[in-house]
Amino acid sequence: MSNIPVITISREYGSGGRAIGERLAKELGIPFYNKELILMAAKESGLSEEYIKKTEQIKSTSFLYGLYMGAQQLPMNDQIFLVQSKIIRQIAEEGPCVIVGRCADYVLRERKDLLNVFIHAPLEYRAQRAREVYEKQAGNMEDFVKKKDKKRASFYNYFSQNKWGDARHYHLAISSEYGVDFAVSVIKHAAESFPGGAR
Amino acid sequence: MSNIPVITISREYGSGGRAIGERLAKELGIPFYNKELILMAAKESGLSEEYIKKTEQIKSTSFLYGLYMGAQQLPMNDQIFLVQSKIIRQIAEEGPCVIVGRCADYVLRERKDLLNVFIHAPLEYRAQRAREVYEKQAGNMEDFVKKKDKKRASFYNYFSQNKWGDARHYHLAISSEYGVDFAVSVIKHAAESFPGGAR
Repeated sequence: MSNIPVITISREYGSGGRAIGERLAKELGIPFYNKELILMAAKESGLSEEYIKKTEQIKSTSFLYGLYMGAQQLPMNDQIFLVQSKIIRQIAEEGPCVIVGRCADYVLRERKDLLNVFIHAPLEYRAQRAREVYEKQAGNMEDFVKKKDKKRASFYNYFSQNKWGDARHYHLAISSEYGVDFAVSVIKHAAESFPGGAR
Repeated sequence: MSNIPVITISREYGSGGRAIGERLAKELGIPFYNKELILMAAKESGLSEEYIKKTEQIKSTSFLYGLYMGAQQLPMNDQIFLVQSKIIRQIAEEGPCVIVGRCADYVLRERKDLLNVFIHAPLEYRAQRAREVYEKQAGNMEDFVKKKDKKRASFYNYFSQNKWGDARHYHLAISSEYGVDFAVSVIKHAAESFPGGAR
């Protein structure tokens, strides 16, 4: 297990990327972090009071929540991003884990033990999943899903200076249209056969 | 082995996509096709004399050769593409195989047993590989590699109406920067655990 990398997951809205990340972490026996858990980790970490307070303030404003949920607030707050980035780097220092979202691939780009994954699926698949799994309601579900993606892309493109969804920025990109089991199996295999050390 | 899909490989210049495809086919025990083998297959196939002649004419002109090698000739010849597409569909009908290039992912998009793969790597990795493996010489190797990619992207974008290199058009995209062994292993696992039937 010593070669298991730090795994970051970026994902299209409705692709099941979060569920895939959770299953993957469980099957590999490593910690799973999403936005909420990154904030929790901050509290338990050795970060300064100042940093933790900042992070808690962030959580209580509608700004970052809106940012994460896809509301209209732009431009982004670089300071907030720096706080989160520090937490993500600390989490990764502790060992192999799965981190969903938060531009973690970009934040951790200097690491040699990094497997950056992008999860996507056709629009119709994601619209259906948004209806069924998330129980979302919208007049035009495909438009709703596209808008969510647009916000994720804005967030990512702003902070990373990369292009969200471009295969070339990820070590592995996989469609979830063939099922969650298939996606988990392929990423798990990649993690277990990871040679490390290329970057 | 019954679930092994038809595997198409698109790749950035210098990423080792062709070598990965050949190894993959060998390890899976299925046929491998690149441009030359698609032309050979045409001769051995049940395609009409007319089609085969057309294809042979194509081969002898500098037009398609230029198209493939990345020369300046544009716009593309749709007729040639249609002939190649027919051959690719026939090859795929015969069973699981690996097809490199030729927009095969787009040509075969209606199939349910399709695994479309994109192989890429950082520019500096590919420039180095072009020097060492292909023994290419160029004043600025990174520019040379970029130009090759641009031609591949033009070819693909023209015929497929998709965007070359966008993760979302492939079932699986993988960087070869962690080595050929790693890439082959991950794609092989995906092929062997392929559930099929999603598209």
